[in-house]
Amino acid sequence: MNFLEERITKDGIVKEGNILKVDSFINHQMDTELLDMMGAEFKRRFSDKNINKILTIEASGIGIACITAMHFKTPVVFAKKSQSINIDGEVYCAEVESFTHKNTNHVIVSKKFLNRDDHVLIIDDFLANGCALQGLISICNEAGASIEGIGIAVEKGFQPGGQIIRNLGYQLESLAIVDGMDASKGSITFREQ
Amino acid sequence: MNFLEERITKDGIVKEGNILKVDSFINHQMDTELLDMMGAEFKRRFSDKNINKILTIEASGIGIACITAMHFKTPVVFAKKSQSINIDGEVYCAEVESFTHKNTNHVIVSKKFLNRDDHVLIIDDFLANGCALQGLISICNEAGASIEGIGIAVEKGFQPGGQIIRNLGYQLESLAIVDGMDASKGSITFREQ
Repeated sequence: MNFLEERITKDGIVKEGNILKVDSFINHQMDTELLDMMGAEFKRRFSDKNINKILTIEASGIGIACITAMHFKTPVVFAKKSQSINIDGEVYCAEVESFTHKNTNHVIVSKKFLNRDDHVLIIDDFLANGCALQGLISICNEAGASIEGIGIAVEKGFQPGGQIIRNLGYQLESLAIVDGMDASKGSITFREQ
Repeated sequence: MNFLEERITKDGIVKEGNILKVDSFINHQMDTELLDMMGAEFKRRFSDKNINKILTIEASGIGIACITAMHFKTPVVFAKKSQSINIDGEVYCAEVESFTHKNTNHVIVSKKFLNRDDHVLIIDDFLANGCALQGLISICNEAGASIEGIGIAVEKGFQPGGQIIRNLGYQLESLAIVDGMDASKGSITFREQ
């Protein structure tokens, strides 16, 4: 097991309905030393890529993205979630349908901060069905930016998001891939990497 | 001028209505090298304090808080904004009336992540009327946590938030205090510190 799998095993909480709570160290409360280790690991996995910008989405992606950016020496842009469509032409906007929540959200990035010269690493804390991530990819495509890779802390391997992204040909690196959980035992099965 | 005042002078945009846009380097797009300098400066200004936790509020406070936390070697907790009151008893909740927007928001922190043993540094990107900050102080008080200080990137010195917080006796350190702006000239006047 790597350092993140060990930490999830120790402090993650499995709940009924395939819910994995990591809010004591990844979101809500963030162990910045752990985030720093994650940043170093992303740097290692994307060491051959020429990355000049990290893109994430509010709110829980921002911490990991910022500390990861210290390793890449790049700025971070975070996409904003919005319930309304901004039609002033100054933003890229992706409409994202949530499979889980059966609603539609909008993901917005100012055109000032993403363009065809950018080589982007997308960072987020969780990947399950991948709706938010699809919105970020759509925005990069709209901007003409190159997506050099995607770094995720925790992927739920039994939900389709990761497979879709890999099928699309992106280099997706998830530091921990959870293939199964048992709430009655509190056990978590990780995919061998 | 310090490094942040210089950067605001160079890249900040003054708009009519006393609006200062710093979204190319502090929020939306974040210059992580600048955030690192801000973290080091907060560490210098609160060097005599025994701080074990940094508290901020989503979304734009999270980046500064996480990189500052690297200097203090502490975890970060971010408060969530919510339009509804959570009454399950598992969270601290402050009701915050916005002077600017004439509406009421709720600021929420899980009881698991803040308690009477905590010595908290509150970090946020902006201080104007101070409504969000008042909510964070209220939550620390509810938790019985000690507030060791408050670190702000940009304070609008011509709005009352900063004075209220200083009147209350807190050590408030704002890296840049804007005392006036002139949109027609694009000029910004900083308070001498």
